[in-house]
Amino acid sequence: MADTLIRRMSTADVGFDLALTTLLDWESASNPTVAETVAKVLAKVRAEGDAALLEFTRQFDGWEPESAAALEIPRSRIQAALDNIDVDVREALETAAERIRAYHQHQCQESWSYREADGTLLGQQITALERVGLYVPGGKATYPSSVLMNAIPAKVAGVDELIMVSPTPKGFVNEMVLAAAAIAGVDRVLTIGGAQAVAALAHGTESIPKVDKIVGPGNIYVATAKRQVFGSVGLDMIAGPSEILVICDGKTDPDWIAMDLFSQAEHDEDAQSILLSPDAAFLDKVEASIARLLPESERAEIIRQSLSARGALILVDDMDEAISLSNRIAPEHLELSVDNAEQLLPNIRHAGAIFLGRYTPEALGDYCAGPNHVLPTSGTARFSSPLGVYDFQKRSSLIGCSAAGASELAKVASILARGESLTAHARSAEYRLLGGENE
Amino acid sequence: MADTLIRRMSTADVGFDLALTTLLDWESASNPTVAETVAKVLAKVRAEGDAALLEFTRQFDGWEPESAAALEIPRSRIQAALDNIDVDVREALETAAERIRAYHQHQCQESWSYREADGTLLGQQITALERVGLYVPGGKATYPSSVLMNAIPAKVAGVDELIMVSPTPKGFVNEMVLAAAAIAGVDRVLTIGGAQAVAALAHGTESIPKVDKIVGPGNIYVATAKRQVFGSVGLDMIAGPSEILVICDGKTDPDWIAMDLFSQAEHDEDAQSILLSPDAAFLDKVEASIARLLPESERAEIIRQSLSARGALILVDDMDEAISLSNRIAPEHLELSVDNAEQLLPNIRHAGAIFLGRYTPEALGDYCAGPNHVLPTSGTARFSSPLGVYDFQKRSSLIGCSAAGASELAKVASILARGESLTAHARSAEYRLLGGENE
Repeated sequence: MADTLIRRMSTADVGFDLALTTLLDWESASNPTVAETVAKVLAKVRAEGDAALLEFTRQFDGWEPESAAALEIPRSRIQAALDNIDVDVREALETAAERIRAYHQHQCQESWSYREADGTLLGQQITALERVGLYVPGGKATYPSSVLMNAIPAKVAGVDELIMVSPTPKGFVNEMVLAAAAIAGVDRVLTIGGAQAVAALAHGTESIPKVDKIVGPGNIYVATAKRQVFGSVGLDMIAGPSEILVICDGKTDPDWIAMDLFSQAEHDEDAQSILLSPDAAFLDKVEASIARLLPESERAEIIRQSLSARGALILVDDMDEAISLSNRIAPEHLELSVDNAEQLLPNIRHAGAIFLGRYTPEALGDYCAGPNHVLPTSGTARFSSPLGVYDFQKRSSLIGCSAAGASELAKVASILARGESLTAHARSAEYRLLGGENE
Repeated sequence: MADTLIRRMSTADVGFDLALTTLLDWESASNPTVAETVAKVLAKVRAEGDAALLEFTRQFDGWEPESAAALEIPRSRIQAALDNIDVDVREALETAAERIRAYHQHQCQESWSYREADGTLLGQQITALERVGLYVPGGKATYPSSVLMNAIPAKVAGVDELIMVSPTPKGFVNEMVLAAAAIAGVDRVLTIGGAQAVAALAHGTESIPKVDKIVGPGNIYVATAKRQVFGSVGLDMIAGPSEILVICDGKTDPDWIAMDLFSQAEHDEDAQSILLSPDAAFLDKVEASIARLLPESERAEIIRQSLSARGALILVDDMDEAISLSNRIAPEHLELSVDNAEQLLPNIRHAGAIFLGRYTPEALGDYCAGPNHVLPTSGTARFSSPLGVYDFQKRSSLIGCSAAGASELAKVASILARGESLTAHARSAEYRLLGGENE
């Protein structure tokens, strides 16, 4: 495939099924050397706290914090970043934040309960997480949009304290990221990164409180550290490479579709862009657009590698087949570049986010439409959801039996508990029988 | 502590904080030998499919299935189990199932969307998981209640196919478990267990389809296998030992409280039962009840070990302090054995399930009150929830921009994308500017 700009496939090809499976295949490599390094970093931060953080920051980030206090960016400095960025950038961030906030407010869950005829109360109480850590990668690949997308749902959920960590390699601070943190309502910003930051959030140090959940993207050290603290602290998903599946009826401008594919491919060489269309001539046109637009793209080399390694233009029989393939792929981003896209919704079973119609490129969703851009990758949309307010709230079951209700339930519980040979369960229930064993 | 029935503590003790931390401390031991064995089992099932399942079933479960088909219990056999169990057991299972179903129906989530003034549609579409695997341990510790609690929320959510796996050591089948599977609407029952069953569900074999999520408890091999397939398939939590925290004002019958503590302790030696009360004399009475009731308990030895190793009767200043300790502990089960328990609810921040009042022992919730008995353990109620319908549904974001809406959003996206140096994102958005670059 080395010379091919992007592979062409057809569902009518012999061996198409296997070829598609191979194309989609992605297994995150777990690296034993990285795992060992990370385990050592975690253990040291757990044992030595702030002192270890200072040492690792010197070693990995190449600057000299004077003390643990120097690892925190003061609130005034964060506000200054917001005050000093270009006004059009500030306005764009604020517009995006407002739209993200408005959308996510629809996700808030309410406590509920109901009372049965005998007075027994049943329900579920919703509460917010108390403290959340947000990892934001440092250096060049620092995305203010990612700060908004992770922080705003947490604050909408009612999280008391949101602590952002982001390394500042050689002291470099991204002003737009700080401004986004200010807009999103982040409570504290710490200039630590890597596995040591995950360790500090998961276990706490003298200056950093233990959090209940850690969210946000990171490199292999961060992802490995998250895996290693799994269980003692809540985690968001560990994301694979980003992907888009575009379904087009052949009536959208091929340049638009080519650029939509590029917008995914430019993320990194492992990103995946796939187009399905029943119109072979349209696929030719999109391929021509790709060939023409690629050389003038700023990130041409990354796009070229991504399209060549993992991209595909696939000819399908018809729209039904396209939808059925899409459900098999369970894409992170699904773009329905067709007329009356909403009519297709009942047939879409698995997708992280669905972009409806020719005027809804994924890029609008990435930044400012409102829904979250943190989405399940690599087919995990089959069982998981976009990041949302629900990830920062949790539920407690409520059971309050009246004396009469308890007596009725105790009869059932007693039989089942004895059937499981758990007699203390049975006796605990039986004490609540009216006129029963309760002395 | 070897001679002590159950430790006594007071929040006024010097060093109480550290003592409590030590008491609560629980780290699931990861066993490298087990991990290695499990990795081999997973690899073999992945490579050899049904043949490996047959081999492991012979080796680990001690019986000889003739073929892969012999690993499935026919529907007629499942129905026969339901027809043949005692009628009172059947009725108890059916009552419990009905109540569990009624409660969980309140958890169903609805798709939602809204349209903005310019015609742009935003929303979230809810869909059920297609296929779910339910692990049920085999042999003695097989709990029909666990079948109901895991299976019913999945079916209420709308899961298409629910596949139960449960080993049958030396061919032993638990009739009550089969009956529960019939009542709960389980679609298929397979007599496989251990890491090989997890492998079959996670990756599929010739006779078993790959599932989207695996739920249900298991031993260390099952738990380790779940950890190893994490990422490619959805999982429920990997549970620690079960725990109860009882808060009592001193006015409940001490025998009732002692038995409530026993009902947790009888699960296993690592289970944890803690009582908080501001009434020292009441703690004495409960201790006396424990001493008196323990010898006559069927599982006395397990209860004795659990209470001695991990139990505690703790004297607190007042109810406010009890609630504050409870929020620190974030118990799996919280029993508020007090008057007007509902009034305390707004102060409870972290708990898996809350049992309100003297007539609501945990045992009723374990079997038949309605809420789920699969709950977050070891303090994870700080960030997670009871198993519920929401664990078998997922969400897809919906974004459908009108031409006018896209044009407005494109301005914002363009600025932010260029700020992140993602110019293909920017150009993809800019194509949708009205009167803009769209040729």
